[in-house]
Amino acid sequence: MKFNCILKKIVDDSYDIEISRGLEDTLVTDMKNGLCTKASKYAVVTDSNVKELYAENICKKLVKAGLEAHLFVIPAGEKSKTRAMKEFVEDSMLEKGFRRDCAVIAVGGGVVSDLAGFVAGTFGRGVPFVNYATTLLSAADASVGGKTAVDTPLATNLIGMFNQPKKVYIDIETWKTLDRTEISSGLSETIKHACLGDKELFEFLEKNIEKVFENHGETCEYIARRNCKVKYQVVMQDERESGLREILNLGHTVGRAVETVSDYRLSHGEAVAIGMAAQVRLGYSLGFISKENMNRVIDLYKRAELPVTVPEYVDKQALVKKLYTDKKVRGGKLRFVFQKEIGDVVCFGENLYSHEIEEERIREILNDM
Amino acid sequence: MKFNCILKKIVDDSYDIEISRGLEDTLVTDMKNGLCTKASKYAVVTDSNVKELYAENICKKLVKAGLEAHLFVIPAGEKSKTRAMKEFVEDSMLEKGFRRDCAVIAVGGGVVSDLAGFVAGTFGRGVPFVNYATTLLSAADASVGGKTAVDTPLATNLIGMFNQPKKVYIDIETWKTLDRTEISSGLSETIKHACLGDKELFEFLEKNIEKVFENHGETCEYIARRNCKVKYQVVMQDERESGLREILNLGHTVGRAVETVSDYRLSHGEAVAIGMAAQVRLGYSLGFISKENMNRVIDLYKRAELPVTVPEYVDKQALVKKLYTDKKVRGGKLRFVFQKEIGDVVCFGENLYSHEIEEERIREILNDM
Repeated sequence: MKFNCILKKIVDDSYDIEISRGLEDTLVTDMKNGLCTKASKYAVVTDSNVKELYAENICKKLVKAGLEAHLFVIPAGEKSKTRAMKEFVEDSMLEKGFRRDCAVIAVGGGVVSDLAGFVAGTFGRGVPFVNYATTLLSAADASVGGKTAVDTPLATNLIGMFNQPKKVYIDIETWKTLDRTEISSGLSETIKHACLGDKELFEFLEKNIEKVFENHGETCEYIARRNCKVKYQVVMQDERESGLREILNLGHTVGRAVETVSDYRLSHGEAVAIGMAAQVRLGYSLGFISKENMNRVIDLYKRAELPVTVPEYVDKQALVKKLYTDKKVRGGKLRFVFQKEIGDVVCFGENLYSHEIEEERIREILNDM
Repeated sequence: MKFNCILKKIVDDSYDIEISRGLEDTLVTDMKNGLCTKASKYAVVTDSNVKELYAENICKKLVKAGLEAHLFVIPAGEKSKTRAMKEFVEDSMLEKGFRRDCAVIAVGGGVVSDLAGFVAGTFGRGVPFVNYATTLLSAADASVGGKTAVDTPLATNLIGMFNQPKKVYIDIETWKTLDRTEISSGLSETIKHACLGDKELFEFLEKNIEKVFENHGETCEYIARRNCKVKYQVVMQDERESGLREILNLGHTVGRAVETVSDYRLSHGEAVAIGMAAQVRLGYSLGFISKENMNRVIDLYKRAELPVTVPEYVDKQALVKKLYTDKKVRGGKLRFVFQKEIGDVVCFGENLYSHEIEEERIREILNDM
């Protein structure tokens, strides 16, 4: 006999992204006003760099406002995105008496929000979380999409879940404390977004990219907003990455692989820049982008102070092999997303935005880089 | 400035539960017919007991049908419900080349389905899974509700997620290979379901409980069906455990605590039996159940060959302390769900089914047991 469990429902995961300078008090007010319903304890998760800069202050403000908040600090860097670190945060929370009536506040960049969002998604089978983004990279990448994950020795971002925050705070003031390489990292995803869906943003960057390094107000706000917009337009149409969403992986097939093979000597942004350079070169060889536009993309990455060739210390054989552990591999074949000139992507069929590439072809391109 | 990400959608997590004798071929046919869309690899997750009994056979049948299937075996027992074991399964899958285009088939009891369902929920940010239940306990408890989780040293079931299977197979034939204590374990949750929502099932069990131990066909089918029905009626109305669903925790506040404090010498079913005995005693002292009905519940648990008192080796001080790590603890206060006579629960207010209990009162009850 059969028994049918009908479980249909309307899910509303909508949330606000607030972009401004100095949003600590807004965050505290939101919490006081019950943004994270039922939460009676707050876990402020941050890293060793951001702790003293912003997280401690946010934690203190929450306590001062009469809320119970505790600080949980992970070591700064991509190497903290592990299952072991997730366990560490969970166990620290459990030891401090955190149970299901809590909320998680991620204060930091992409690593913190990826890890803290994943912690929140499985703690007590899911507690609310908000994301206080303190880097351009997380404003560009981690604020929209709900992707959370950790890395494993065998693959990056393969263990994780979709988990939407209750709100995202993009505090442009915090970008002042970023060093140039961190600004570059954020620009890497920003240029990627421009390449795949926002020609105007691309042209704006061609004119103003240096101003981002100077923390120029309107420039930063514009960039934060357009990043969110591009990503949101994609994600809204395809939350679960079944089709369209894979275009956000532009440049990431090579990018993720080179990041891992470099043993994280390359930052995510640097790795994506190399991946994007590989993608336009590959795209040019396949006729998806003109030589001129290929060079515009490569030049913009250079002006963002990012690498556009594979560093000498990266073994290219290992890199090609690593490509096959990518999430996008289907039935053992490499798949790539390609930009169509600037501001669009190539569509290869209904809901199909990636294309099978022969190992030999990608090997040739990488050997030339 | 604010940017609003509107993410509203209709989610359909409906699935079938098939109850019958010998469902291996049905499972294989379902997979062939694309029940787990896009999957090109199948991870059959099982435990060391069920492996030889059923899982190997299912894996072979899948391969014979032309599907790529691999077997992943965890040690049998509640102690396998850990984050370390989740990592072990994930890493084994990654080593065998599993990426996002896979599906997970849990073959076993509650531990296997809890762990495998959690693995599936976070592997590649979520891949489809089905549940082939080989115990009465998992038919009663793990087949409906979508709860998956692991235990940590500090709390049971606190790290996990809601993840609905694509289908559940309840193979009553497999109950033949259960020993009496495993049948008892399943009866423990079955009696709980009867107590909280199905008076008819309770009376049926009072008449026929011995027949379950004999694997009597109609009796087993009836029990499997009614278990699913009670649980489904609760879950359907409240998937995320915000209110009504907490009634499924009847007997579990003490149950989970005694299970942990016994260091898992008590099975989950035995622990729940003790928890249910504590609950009816507490409920009688508060006037929620008559003495006669309290005794009927305790007697039925005895006939199911389950303990209704706290074993001597369990330290009662430690047990009371442990209660405070329960998921149901809110603001440091113990909360209990109570049955209202037989077949119903006590409602303490709109959407409120648990009641704050003084530590002294529960201490007294436990000291008497």
